[in-house]
Amino acid sequence: MWHRQTLVLKPRARGFHLVTDEITGQLAALADINTGLLHLLLQHTSASLTLNENCDPSVRADMENHFLRHVPQDAPYEHDYEGLDDMPAHIKSSLLGVSLLLPIGRGKVLLGTWQGIWLGEHRNRGGERRIIATLQGE
Amino acid sequence: MWHRQTLVLKPRARGFHLVTDEITGQLAALADINTGLLHLLLQHTSASLTLNENCDPSVRADMENHFLRHVPQDAPYEHDYEGLDDMPAHIKSSLLGVSLLLPIGRGKVLLGTWQGIWLGEHRNRGGERRIIATLQGE
Amino acid sequence: MWHRQTLVLKPRARGFHLVTDEITGQLAALADINTGLLHLLLQHTSASLTLNENCDPSVRADMENHFLRHVPQDAPYEHDYEGLDDMPAHIKSSLLGVSLLLPIGRGKVLLGTWQGIWLGEHRNRGGERRIIATLQGE
Repeated sequence: MWHRQTLVLKPRARGFHLVTDEITGQLAALADINTGLLHLLLQHTSASLTLNENCDPSVRADMENHFLRHVPQDAPYEHDYEGLDDMPAHIKSSLLGVSLLLPIGRGKVLLGTWQGIWLGEHRNRGGERRIIATLQGE
Repeated sequence: MWHRQTLVLKPRARGFHLVTDEITGQLAALADINTGLLHLLLQHTSASLTLNENCDPSVRADMENHFLRHVPQDAPYEHDYEGLDDMPAHIKSSLLGVSLLLPIGRGKVLLGTWQGIWLGEHRNRGGERRIIATLQGE
Repeated sequence: MWHRQTLVLKPRARGFHLVTDEITGQLAALADINTGLLHLLLQHTSASLTLNENCDPSVRADMENHFLRHVPQDAPYEHDYEGLDDMPAHIKSSLLGVSLLLPIGRGKVLLGTWQGIWLGEHRNRGGERRIIATLQGE
C-alpha cells in the first residue's frame, strides 16, 4: 500500500518546535498500516526536520542558541539578499536535514520514549512550511 | 516482503564505534532479499548513527575530538539535569542523525568499500542502545 | 516495482555542486513510477549528498567557506595520511550525510521549488563518485 499526502505546518517563530502531533494528526492513513515506513520531506531550504527530545522546552532553546553561536549571522557571506538570517538558515537546513524516515507498527510511528519530531524554523519570518508525506506498508 | 525487528546494541564507552557486524549479524532476514532497503532507527536522543570509514580507528578518535571542540561541554546550557554531557549529546544526535537507509543487493548491505556503520555514543554512560530495523524488498 | 542502478558522477573540484539533472537524467525508470520513493546512497566517506538551494551559486560558495572555517584543516588530527583535507572530509561527510530519500509523483522527483541535490566534494582531488540508486513504487 502506498499513500502520498501534502501536509502544511502553520507559521512559527524562529527556533525549534515539537510537531509530532501536528504531523501524525493529519495522517489518517497511518491506521491502515501494520508494518511499514513513513517518509517526510520538508520542501524548503531554510528550515529543517530532526528527531530530538520531546519533553523539556529548554532542550529546544539550548539547541537554537548552539546554532546561533556556531552558524553566526555576522560571517562574511556573499548571499544575503534576504537579510542576516538568510545564509545561516541554508547552512542549518543542510546540517540538520529536511527528511525523516520513521518505522510504523500497528498504525503508529515507532519513536523512542523520549523522541519527537522537531521543525527547525531558521528564518525570522518563515511562514507556512510544506511537507510531502509518503506512507508505505502492509 | 516486510520484516521488522528490534536490535539491541551492547553498552559502549563514549565515542564512535564500528557496529556494522553487530547489526547485520542479527538480521537473518537479509538473506531473503534480492533487491531492497534496510532502515535503521536508533530510538534515542543522546546517541547517533552515521556512515564513515571502516578501517583506521584514528578516524573515530579524531571525530570524537572534533565534536568535543565544536559542541563544548562548558557552553551556557540551561538543560543540564544529567550532567555536562547531557545537552552536548542532544546536539550531536541531531547533527549526525539517528537513522540510516541502506540498499540491499543479493542478501547483503551495499556499502562502499570504505564505509561502515558507526554508533556515536555521546553520553558518558549511555547503556544499551535500541534500534528498530525495518527490511523490505523482493 | 523495484529497480536498482549504479550511477557515476564525473570528477569535480572541491566544493558544492548542483547534480540534480546529472542524477535524474540517468534514471529512465523514474518515468514508470506514479507514487514511490528514490533512494540515493553515495558510497564514499569523504563526500556528501544534501538538499539545498538550486539557483544562486553564491549559496554553494558560502557553504564551502562555512565548512572551511568550522571544520579546519589545521586542527590536531591524528589521521592525516592523505593530506590536510583528509580528516576534514570525513567529518563533513558525516555532518551532511551521504544518503537521500526523495518522493516520486507521476514520474518526477517531488522537490520543493528551490530545492536541488548537491554533491559535496570534500577532497582536493576526489575523482569519480559512485551512487547506488534504488527506486520503488507503483
